[in-house]
Amino acid sequence: MKKNKYIIQPNIEDISLYEKVKGLDQEGERISAKVVQERPLTIYLNNQEIVTLMTINDYPEYLAIGYLLNQNMINPNERIRKVEYDKDIQTIVIRTNRKTNYEKLLKKKITTSGCAQGTVFGDIYEEIEKTKIKSKTKIKKIWIYELSKQITLTPSLYLEAGAIHGCVLCKNNSPLIYMEDVGRHNAIDKIAGFIFKNKITTNDKIFYTTGRLTSEMIIKTVKMGIPILISRSGFTAWGVELAMKTNLTLIGRAKGKRFLVLSGHTRIT
Amino acid sequence: MKKNKYIIQPNIEDISLYEKVKGLDQEGERISAKVVQERPLTIYLNNQEIVTLMTINDYPEYLAIGYLLNQNMINPNERIRKVEYDKDIQTIVIRTNRKTNYEKLLKKKITTSGCAQGTVFGDIYEEIEKTKIKSKTKIKKIWIYELSKQITLTPSLYLEAGAIHGCVLCKNNSPLIYMEDVGRHNAIDKIAGFIFKNKITTNDKIFYTTGRLTSEMIIKTVKMGIPILISRSGFTAWGVELAMKTNLTLIGRAKGKRFLVLSGHTRIT
Repeated sequence: MKKNKYIIQPNIEDISLYEKVKGLDQEGERISAKVVQERPLTIYLNNQEIVTLMTINDYPEYLAIGYLLNQNMINPNERIRKVEYDKDIQTIVIRTNRKTNYEKLLKKKITTSGCAQGTVFGDIYEEIEKTKIKSKTKIKKIWIYELSKQITLTPSLYLEAGAIHGCVLCKNNSPLIYMEDVGRHNAIDKIAGFIFKNKITTNDKIFYTTGRLTSEMIIKTVKMGIPILISRSGFTAWGVELAMKTNLTLIGRAKGKRFLVLSGHTRIT
Repeated sequence: MKKNKYIIQPNIEDISLYEKVKGLDQEGERISAKVVQERPLTIYLNNQEIVTLMTINDYPEYLAIGYLLNQNMINPNERIRKVEYDKDIQTIVIRTNRKTNYEKLLKKKITTSGCAQGTVFGDIYEEIEKTKIKSKTKIKKIWIYELSKQITLTPSLYLEAGAIHGCVLCKNNSPLIYMEDVGRHNAIDKIAGFIFKNKITTNDKIFYTTGRLTSEMIIKTVKMGIPILISRSGFTAWGVELAMKTNLTLIGRAKGKRFLVLSGHTRIT
């Protein structure tokens, strides 16, 4: 198997991402456990406070931009004029040329499932139901195994401390961009932010997540224009329905040599 | 091992909780997979719309009451005058004798981690940091193994369809109340609602969750007055910190014969 060469990934050497905590194991022996940090990050769009997210905060700029993109608060062609991150007061301000006001949108809020409760503002569901992914990108069965194996073996915060989710943007059988966070929605938003900032083409990519294939994961993948979504975890009915409507290839329960395809199987060769 | 006799648990015979979806497996064979349903449920408190949750919706009344309790929108001694659940328009209205208005609270919103993003309204963090659990309830090491084993073997929506989280209220080595949902926050809220409705004592109980021990899981357990929290999954640093501050016994990574205690080990005998 080839060596992973990610364009970007969590810096597992960064000790600010963990805390060492003293405790006892099952034998009553004193142990020191590594646990992940979660910190608040308040996101402003121009002069408006949008949300406070709990995050490991390794890539605040990508997280903020990806979050705003995935909530339709900035658009894919938006001109970002300035990003001001203030570590001390845990805020980040994204400034655009366009005037923005999402007071109305902020009022329409659906707390989604996910593992806990994601928040989706406004009419994203209605928008997504009209989207069709047209990409003719294919995935070979063997790539599914190869990607899963490489990603599982990548040194990660998950292997170091657990209690964290990962998302990976891949091309063919190569994982390229790896993001982790306490919320897998943060992980996917950080990837969206990186894609935006670096103008990465998405219609030839594959998205891998450790989390479940619920509606909001489908929405975010479709919004990013990625045609294939893989997870080691399971599906929800609404997730499957949205994937079928949008022509997304949905591969779940991908473990070892097994997987299930519940939407868009024609992209698998 | 004794047979499970739950007071309440998900009805795995209820076919409305699943959907059968056709797909292909790794060999390209046609299969029919069971996947869980997620549906919106909009919660009103008196005349005010509070939130829309995505849920499997098996116990809407418990979910709504537990959610409002855990968000400090109804208090533990609240008199609930009426509950109106309308299946067709997917709404539930909780009516209290007291006049309520949470317009201000609804504006202060922290999107927490969890697996996705939970939403916590208002100043719950500040309130919890001042709380101390005084219960002298103990847990035997062997009960941790017995509970984990019984819960894992219980017929559940997880075993049927996956992509779902479970929470269980236990006493000694007996699991009593089992709730599952697409969001583990919904599962814990349903338990909180059941406890409220049935006036169940909590300071002698043990809480088990399949999910991670993040800050908002600690907060909800402490708010319910339960002294011991167990998970098969890991911890976040802030979760551990809150558990220590509130004197909650926190047992994580409980798998097979192994576990770690990162707070309140004096309750383990």
